Amino acid sequence: MLFFTQCFGAVLDLIHLRFQHYKAKRVFSAAGQLVCVVNPTHSLKYAPTRCAAVQASTEQSILPPCHHHEAVHDSQLLPCTCPLFSCPWEGHLEVVVSHLRQTHRINILQGAEIVFLATDMHLPAPTDWIIMHSCLGHQFLLVLRKQEKYEGHPQFFATMMLIGTPTQADNFTYRLELNRNQRRLKWEATPRSILECVDSVISDGDCLVLNTSLAQLFSDNGSLAIGIAITTSKVHSSEAEM
Amino acid sequence: MLFFTQCFGAVLDLIHLRFQHYKAKRVFSAAGQLVCVVNPTHSLKYAPTRCAAVQASTEQSILPPCHHHEAVHDSQLLPCTCPLFSCPWEGHLEVVVSHLRQTHRINILQGAEIVFLATDMHLPAPTDWIIMHSCLGHQFLLVLRKQEKYEGHPQFFATMMLIGTPTQADNFTYRLELNRNQRRLKWEATPRSILECVDSVISDGDCLVLNTSLAQLFSDNGSLAIGIAITTSKVHSSEAEM
Repeated sequence: MLFFTQCFGAVLDLIHLRFQHYKAKRVFSAAGQLVCVVNPTHSLKYAPTRCAAVQASTEQSILPPCHHHEAVHDSQLLPCTCPLFSCPWEGHLEVVVSHLRQTHRINILQGAEIVFLATDMHLPAPTDWIIMHSCLGHQFLLVLRKQEKYEGHPQFFATMMLIGTPTQADNFTYRLELNRNQRRLKWEATPRSILECVDSVISDGDCLVLNTSLAQLFSDNGSLAIGIAITTSKVHSSEAEM
Repeated sequence: MLFFTQCFGAVLDLIHLRFQHYKAKRVFSAAGQLVCVVNPTHSLKYAPTRCAAVQASTEQSILPPCHHHEAVHDSQLLPCTCPLFSCPWEGHLEVVVSHLRQTHRINILQGAEIVFLATDMHLPAPTDWIIMHSCLGHQFLLVLRKQEKYEGHPQFFATMMLIGTPTQADNFTYRLELNRNQRRLKWEATPRSILECVDSVISDGDCLVLNTSLAQLFSDNGSLAIGIAITTSKVHSSEAEM
């Protein structure tokens, strides 16, 4: 028993030591889990969202509209796959990953279970925290967004998108978990395809939603740790039970 | 394999059959879980909340104020323990259960895991859905409230309170789980004591919070099923891991 207590203490010390050095080394492994420190991307406050801009352009029949729940051929140009508000980029599905890495310097992490550590949660809305996650032979995009749906009341929205088609996305389940201060919040769902707008997923509220007070309860020193796991999907057994 | 499939089909039929008769029999057991159908209690729309009313009275030093996180002697009169907006009742901790049962006809259910099925989710805010849950030698109160924190944007708030002192409440963990449409949302926390105002727990947002769109995704035919489980509390193991 004493041995286990000591081991546990040693692991905690290790985590603490590594946290102190996180500025130097942005991705590290703590207690077997990969922890990625994610800095915020402050969105252009008064810029129209990508979807709105695209929809406006569509009326002049230049660009295709956002594809909500529709099958899209890979050969089609995708105007909505870069979730950053201010980016005018468009391109094919297979080059989204390299665009996000090269142009936006978004990290890509490997591993079945990772911890996403979003810093500077106090920054004003709209703000995005984004990483890519490579897992089970596919790439996923995790977007945490601080946004004011109701003026003066910022909320946090977290969702996972597959960098692939909606049909491919249906094969997976993602889980986001917050755990602190004797509270635990878990969200499990099928990822949406990146061919659907991240903006519409968030405006529909079909994602993990946190109000400011809950976000503060789950935060530590202005940073929010979100545990992420991706699995191949199966029928939710307890759904049948309920 | 075929045998199991048939058994599963038979259980589903049984659940369906029993749902058809739920008006006659409000509490039933489906697949080993106790399901309680809970009808809404429409709160008086323009009545001040109990806490506000009590706080106002306190200024004239008649009644004690709401007790937020304070130890309160059992002998003290409790003005805040009846969570219904419009009830002017006050009494000792040990008679809260009988008050809720007799005056407000709130059901009390036994069992480690139960399903709370709230009907008529479309009713306008403010509305409460309330049951008591007897488990592990104690009584708990589950409150689901539809409330407009931001005008024109009703939200659902669910929390569990122990009908006991804050010290007793610290010994338990409750879990609320929603599971439908390939989405799952779980909230785990230590129950608050009924000596703290349910209104303040909800206004702090320290509970399960659902916006209208998420509530619709988890609802079936206007009813929301919430799985409830209560356990004696232990250190959340993954908290240390994260």
